[in-house]
Formats: sequence, C-alpha cells, structure tokens
Amino acid sequence: MPLNSIPAKLKLGFLGAGQLARMSALQAFRFGIQVGVFSDRSENEPVQFMTPFSHSGSFDSVDDMVQFAKECDVITLENEFISSEILQEVQDKSGTPIFPSPKSFALIENKLIEKQTFENAGIPVTPYKLVTSKADLEEFGNTYSWPYLLKSSKGGYDGYGNKTARNLEQAMQGFDDLGGNNGRDILAEAFVPFTKELAVQVARNEHGVVVYPCCETVQENHICVAVLSPAPIEEKFQLKAQELAVKAIEAIDGKGIFAFEFFLTENGDVLLNESAPRPHNSGHYTIEGCITSQFENHVRSVLGLPLGSTEMTQPAAVMINLLGTHNRPAEADHILQSLSEKNGHLHVYGKIQSKVGRKMAHYTLLGDDLDKTFMEATHLTESFQI
Amino acid sequence: MPLNSIPAKLKLGFLGAGQLARMSALQAFRFGIQVGVFSDRSENEPVQFMTPFSHSGSFDSVDDMVQFAKECDVITLENEFISSEILQEVQDKSGTPIFPSPKSFALIENKLIEKQTFENAGIPVTPYKLVTSKADLEEFGNTYSWPYLLKSSKGGYDGYGNKTARNLEQAMQGFDDLGGNNGRDILAEAFVPFTKELAVQVARNEHGVVVYPCCETVQENHICVAVLSPAPIEEKFQLKAQELAVKAIEAIDGKGIFAFEFFLTENGDVLLNESAPRPHNSGHYTIEGCITSQFENHVRSVLGLPLGSTEMTQPAAVMINLLGTHNRPAEADHILQSLSEKNGHLHVYGKIQSKVGRKMAHYTLLGDDLDKTFMEATHLTESFQI
Repeated sequence: MPLNSIPAKLKLGFLGAGQLARMSALQAFRFGIQVGVFSDRSENEPVQFMTPFSHSGSFDSVDDMVQFAKECDVITLENEFISSEILQEVQDKSGTPIFPSPKSFALIENKLIEKQTFENAGIPVTPYKLVTSKADLEEFGNTYSWPYLLKSSKGGYDGYGNKTARNLEQAMQGFDDLGGNNGRDILAEAFVPFTKELAVQVARNEHGVVVYPCCETVQENHICVAVLSPAPIEEKFQLKAQELAVKAIEAIDGKGIFAFEFFLTENGDVLLNESAPRPHNSGHYTIEGCITSQFENHVRSVLGLPLGSTEMTQPAAVMINLLGTHNRPAEADHILQSLSEKNGHLHVYGKIQSKVGRKMAHYTLLGDDLDKTFMEATHLTESFQI
Repeated sequence: MPLNSIPAKLKLGFLGAGQLARMSALQAFRFGIQVGVFSDRSENEPVQFMTPFSHSGSFDSVDDMVQFAKECDVITLENEFISSEILQEVQDKSGTPIFPSPKSFALIENKLIEKQTFENAGIPVTPYKLVTSKADLEEFGNTYSWPYLLKSSKGGYDGYGNKTARNLEQAMQGFDDLGGNNGRDILAEAFVPFTKELAVQVARNEHGVVVYPCCETVQENHICVAVLSPAPIEEKFQLKAQELAVKAIEAIDGKGIFAFEFFLTENGDVLLNESAPRPHNSGHYTIEGCITSQFENHVRSVLGLPLGSTEMTQPAAVMINLLGTHNRPAEADHILQSLSEKNGHLHVYGKIQSKVGRKMAHYTLLGDDLDKTFMEATHLTESFQI
C-alpha cells in the first residue's frame, strides 16, 4: 500500500509515547501529518505535549489499542513492549495497518526465533543455546567460557532482562531470576571478545531499501554514552555490517526503520547482536549528520513514501547522550557553551523529571575529523547538568 | 533576561496560529519546550494539531490574550495583526514578556513611523509622502511619476491594503478605498524601477546579532513563488542589504527574528521596502539551507539563548512555494518525484482546505549552482497538485 499522496488529516499513530515517538512525530509534522500517541504511563510523556490526540491504556489490552488504532490511518511502533500476537489482533480488529508488521516483529521479539531466523539467512550471530537444565548451564560455560550471559527470550532493554553467569551457581540463580523455572525460555549467550560495538540503521518499504553508515556505539554500564559515525574501523568491516543489516531486514520482510547492533570481534568477525524494529539511539546523529534522518525515514517507510538519502552531510558525526545528573525536576543547565558551537546541535527531550542516568537530551557535533570531533563534543558537553 | 537553562515545562506562546507558528514550534520542541497557540480563527489551524495548549479568542481582546499569556513563559508573534498598544497591555497585565517587544513593533507597525525610523538611522527607503488632500495626491505623481502606490499606514499583507494610482482619479478613489477620508493615514509611495527584490532575515538578542544570506524573492501577482539564496547579484549588493538589515534591527532595538525586504534598483541602490517582526516566507529555505534555520533562531532569540550560525550548508538553495492548485480538501499529490530527489526537502503544512493560490507547502532544493538548482526545483515540483 504505497502512499501516492498525503491527504489532509492523515494520522500516524504511535504505540508508545517515549522520546522515539517524539522525534519521529517532528518529522511527521513536516509532512503535515497528524500524530496520535498511545501511552501506558500515568506520568505525562513529552510527546503528549505535542499533540491533542493522546490516549492512555494498557499494552496488554487489545480493546484499548483497537479504539486508538481506529482513529489512525497507520500505526507504528516505538518500542518492543507489545507482543506480536496482540499487535496482530489490534491490526485485525481495527483494520488499521501496523508497520513494522506483527509478522516481521514476531521474528525478532523472541530472541531464540530471532537468532534462528538470522542464522538461516546466513547472518552470523553470537553463539547461543536454549538452556533448560543445570546440565545445559554447565555445559554452555564449559564449551564456550565463563562468564557468559543469560537472557530471557522475551523482554529486555538496555541490559535489563540479562544476567551474567560467572560460575554454575550464578548461572542457576540467573536462570531462576529470569523466570526459567516458570516456563520462560532462557538463552545462554557467549561473551564475545569484541573490539567495537557497531550499529546500522536501515529502512525498507515498497520503494526499496536504504542503509545508513555503520556507526560505533560507545557503552558504559550497558548504556550507550556516545555514537561515532562512521565507525572508526576499516571500511571492509563497515561494509560488512551494512550488508548484514540489509540481509537482516530482508530476512524478516521488514517495512519500517530497523536498527541492528553488531560486535566486531578480535578475529575480524561481524556478529549480529541485537535488533530493534524502530528508530534507535544509535541513529540520533542522523538528524543533522545525514541528509535524511532515521526519524524521517521512519515516517516515510511506514507510510510507503519513497525513502530519503542516508548520505552523511559532513565527514564525521558524534552524538553524546546527555544523561540525568540529578534526581530533580528537569532543568537543562550549562547549555550556553554547547549552543554557541556552530556545528553543534542540542536536543532536549522535555521530560519533566530528571533521574541520574536517565536519557534526558543529546548533543550532536559534526566535523571533518572523527577523533577531533569526539574530543570537542565531549568538551562542549562536560559541564552540562540536568 | 537571557536564559541560562531550559527548565521543564517552559512554554512559548504564539499569538497567531499560522504556518510560521507551526514551523517555529517544531524548533521549540527540539529543545523540549512546550508550545501554546492563540488563534483568532474558527477553523482549526495545523499548529493546533501539534499541541494540547490551544486557545481561541480575538486579537482585539486584551482579556482573551492576557489569560493565554499567563499560561506561557514568553510570548512571541507570528503576524502583524495585533496593535502594539494591545500587545503592551497584554504584557503589562499578564506579566509575561513579549518578544519582539511591543516597543519595537510600534516602530514598524505604522508605515509612516517605520519609514521615518529607518531614514533617521541612515537606511535608504523607497520615496514616500503622507498624503492628506487631492493636491498632495496630484503633486506626488507629478514629482515622482505615475503610476505610484497608495498604502494605508497600518495593516497590509501580501499586497492587500495597497492601491495603484495610475492617474489622479484612481489616486482619489484609492485614497477613499483605503480609508483616507475616514481619518486613516495614507502614504503615497513611488514605484521603484527595481531589478531584483531581495530579503534578509536577521536575529538579535542579548547575545548579539546574526544575519542570514541576502536572498532573492521571485514574485508573481504580489505572491512570492520562489526564493533563491544567495541572491544572484554582485556580492557588494548582498553585503549592502545585510548591512542595512542589521542597521534596521538595531534601529528598532529588535529582540527576535526579523525579515527585511529590499529593492535593488537599476541605479544600484538598495532600498528598504518592508519589514516583518517574525520568521518570513523568504527564509523557509534556511531549514535545510543554513546551519541554523530562521525558526530555530526565532526560538533562540526570543528566549535569550545564544544565536546559531546562519552559514549556508551548500552553495545554493532554492525554495519553491507550492500554492493551492484546487479548491478542495487538501491532498498533496504527485509528490513522489520531489520526495525521491536526494537534495530536495518537501514540507507540507497540513492545512485542511486547499484554495487556488493559497500557500499549502514548499519545497527546498540544495545544490552547487543556483541556476541549475532553480531549474531542477521547478522541474521537480511542476506536477505537484494540492
């Protein structure tokens, strides 16, 4: 169903009201498209200050979401918190199409199916095994190495839903903590001795596929603190990650924007680690760093519009996540320096409450040289408080 | 009152709910700032689909606007339809600052005072005279030339409120039509044999002044159909217009973004023609064409934040106004071609009803060569329908 025109009052509905919906909404507005948001929070989310079409309800309630979907022309996702079965029901009962489709999402929401799907498509993934017993837990550590990672096959976000198993005792404890003893599928995943963590955004619909540069995500305590684009690695590895991202979106027949995260290992392997059926923190730099941002291609792709160029606007882009420095009502402070830099772009998310470590804002700096740009971006944001 | 931080729930209020408020709001959102709009229309305006804080009332009612202003932290303008006296009263009674200030606006809302103010600041303006009698009307035509222009000193927008006087009879008729016989101040203005119409946007606050490139506005029937930046004229004329724009904003102690329109005459004179205390159609190209758009500098300037760079992102930018082609519910059609061009950026305003000639959307194309970019932009939008 490609869109050949943009009719008045066309409404794009977001299941989820977080910052990704907010930034995608800004692009929808540029095309004169109206935005509806469905939130499961009681607290007001910033995107709710950007539209009069705001609904509240439960991500478990088909009825709540059907009512919302009926008021929208197309529904899209901004998180992975709703099961594909429920999404399918919402689509069937409302008659409103959902993209990425519930069918595509079904192939990645469960980590076991996800890994099998990508393996079958010839995409290397991190070594894993479905573990169901003490013997499995022991064998996995002995086969690969201790420590390794335990993940529940569903849920999990920014390191939540993961447990590290340093020995058999921890493995058994983690297995129980993640619900393995309550019938939940638990995966063991080997720690990969990686040299870089990479990410690639890719958008796809009836018009084709566009792939963004391969960027590096810099993580501290499982939280992304900075993104460097293009990743400071040999070009052949960049191209490999981009090629695998395109293969991955095709393997799940994805319509929409997806982000795929990879490990670059010491051996020079590029292994798929995680996937997200939505815009991604690793792609925030594309707002100014690429001709068409991930958010604009999110809107274009789910509506069936031609996709925009992913070419970079300058040779180097660095995005710094500005995390909460205080537990207090949010107030973005010490911003004058970053606002005064010609090639710097400050984005504040408008959250009401700041919390230490919460993603509150980000800063993108463009330049000619990646190292220099990273140093400058770090310097320009080091006094930022929120 | 420069702003050193952006607190949660900071709310910027727009008096007026047109497309300029809409595009400025998008930039406010980028800083996490909330947006209120005050509309005097019964029909829903697109910006009202972008905020839950929407008020209706009359631009003549101080009470209506005071109530609105009290809910906002700073108020700004997006048109010239409210008198400076009323703005001053709204500011005094609400305690909410208005920028551009009522004092600055008082110096340009009345065309007679405007011309005197700029002349006193050494800025050349088109020849004019306050006319009050048949003798005045005759003398002006004989001194300068027939035809000339009659303008009411207040009001007027896109050629409305102007009358052409080809002879004394038309001059007397025009004088009456504009309310000259009812005590309204009427100005006679000489037609200037110009070779180009130019525009310069300029933003100013406590942090300083930034001036945009001098662009050319291409007009048909008093409606701007295209903008070319930088204007295809000798650099010395560009610099002259920029210099006069800075002088002009200083002459009125302007805080905010202003646009100044100039005539470049056959003699090589640059004459100030019109001024606007707000973002301007001539500056839409700055969204992609400059590092910081006029809308972002609108938000920055009225809030007292440091101003952003006005440097162009590519050597040439062309903006095409996409005017209504039908009288019908709006539907932006034949858009695939323009959306598929790498360096092209389509903006649809989300208006519900299309009307022949109404500003419904615009398209900006960036490139290396102005002539080529203009030709391509024209080609890419020629089949557009709305």
